[in-house]
Amino acid sequence: MNFIGKLINRLEGIDSHLCVGLDTRYDMIPKQVKRNKSVRKAIFEFNREVISVTNSIAVAYKINTAFYEGYGIDGIKGLFETNKYLRKSFPSIPILADTKRAEMGDSALMIKKQIFDWLDFDCIMVTPWLGYDTVSNLVNDRTHGILVYVHDSNPSAVEFQELGLKGGGYVYEEVARQIVNKWNKFGNVFVEAGATYPKQLRKVRKIVGEDMPILTAGIVNQGGDINNLKGLFGRNNRRLIVNSSRGIIYAGINKKNYFETVGQAAEEIRKKVWEVANS
Amino acid sequence: MNFIGKLINRLEGIDSHLCVGLDTRYDMIPKQVKRNKSVRKAIFEFNREVISVTNSIAVAYKINTAFYEGYGIDGIKGLFETNKYLRKSFPSIPILADTKRAEMGDSALMIKKQIFDWLDFDCIMVTPWLGYDTVSNLVNDRTHGILVYVHDSNPSAVEFQELGLKGGGYVYEEVARQIVNKWNKFGNVFVEAGATYPKQLRKVRKIVGEDMPILTAGIVNQGGDINNLKGLFGRNNRRLIVNSSRGIIYAGINKKNYFETVGQAAEEIRKKVWEVANS
Repeated sequence: MNFIGKLINRLEGIDSHLCVGLDTRYDMIPKQVKRNKSVRKAIFEFNREVISVTNSIAVAYKINTAFYEGYGIDGIKGLFETNKYLRKSFPSIPILADTKRAEMGDSALMIKKQIFDWLDFDCIMVTPWLGYDTVSNLVNDRTHGILVYVHDSNPSAVEFQELGLKGGGYVYEEVARQIVNKWNKFGNVFVEAGATYPKQLRKVRKIVGEDMPILTAGIVNQGGDINNLKGLFGRNNRRLIVNSSRGIIYAGINKKNYFETVGQAAEEIRKKVWEVANS
Repeated sequence: MNFIGKLINRLEGIDSHLCVGLDTRYDMIPKQVKRNKSVRKAIFEFNREVISVTNSIAVAYKINTAFYEGYGIDGIKGLFETNKYLRKSFPSIPILADTKRAEMGDSALMIKKQIFDWLDFDCIMVTPWLGYDTVSNLVNDRTHGILVYVHDSNPSAVEFQELGLKGGGYVYEEVARQIVNKWNKFGNVFVEAGATYPKQLRKVRKIVGEDMPILTAGIVNQGGDINNLKGLFGRNNRRLIVNSSRGIIYAGINKKNYFETVGQAAEEIRKKVWEVANS
């Protein structure tokens, strides 16, 4: 099945817009999970527990690879096992590789080998800085998706993404336009725009249209207001994916039942977003 | 020692501007090197041979991590061993991690753990798309450098990097200016600008001044003309680093003595660049 089909099936198949970010830092894993375990096993076990309380409401899992790569071979093995587990146990849930890479030519083929063939992700998240060459070797593989960072959620995202252009508009708008007009010719490219910049997110929705999925982030820890998402959900109210990472996976800190609290935090966000989508 | 000091010592210590790109693809390694060896050992052995014929004229080694990550755990171990070997045998030669990442906050700290602490690189190469947050957790560590992609050498680099700005000038110029005015406050940030765009490279030199090192690329396989580098070498003619990857490491293909030819190819480029620098 092609990637966008898989993503939209999942989006339309459950009452949720939630993407769960497995940004698992080994040093943040609770002691009771770590006990008597290798780094690799502790990372996998933590993820397995998070997945067990979120899989019914997760449209997708997003994995920022840096958190695993920071722990060397063990961390990377923990990531590999997580994906293998997800693929086997929850094959209908897409897994997104948040790597923020930007390679081209030969090295883009290597990224494909790493992210798609070896680690078995469904989708890679890239920055657009190098232009279309970044994705030219990836877009022809329709079974895998490409998510482009159009307007990030972080404070300094505005520095270059919001430079004003000679002909009017801003850099990020031109990126969104190029994605629609050129990058998405095989229908497997979609975009990220931060919820911390609601006006810009609205602009991105306008440019990409109602059908293209948008991933948004920054609603819990970065102060983005869920209410601002109103009207941005696209076709059938099912084309916006709302990511939360730390707001979910670390919700259990200092709580009696760590993973029960994680599940509750995820459900709370799902519900709030769902209400805004359908209000 | 701080990173820029190490880099400039090396630049001023040998009669060369050459950076050797170890973009080692396992499938391109000659049969006689691969024979009876694991992927990890073949990668390391190939790199060790390239290093043996280039170390006296290499200002730095640049390693695009994608070529290793594409081969999974074995590839990454081959990279780890290459860096360990370089560090031990040639401690005065800086090693640059060409990863084109762009993380921030917590995940930037993880990149630091991966690239600096674990893999032992001297410098990381990042894209500026997310703004200053990308480097805010890295710049305070002066013993490691940050190289920012300001204007890439690839054809589609112009798509966003050369968007014209409302106030005049182009996006890449604004990036270069921000690096000088804000990013480089601890003196460990420098820039990349492709030799395939000589006019823009000239502009970048003008903005960053004579003291900041510039890494340039694209002179052999991408058609950049070495003669166009004239006047761009900066302070003492020793602030420009000229990278070649495939033009060196694969020069031995179909030649009787693979690595002798690699050494000759490197020396040929070194000499041409040296002549332009000192003409």
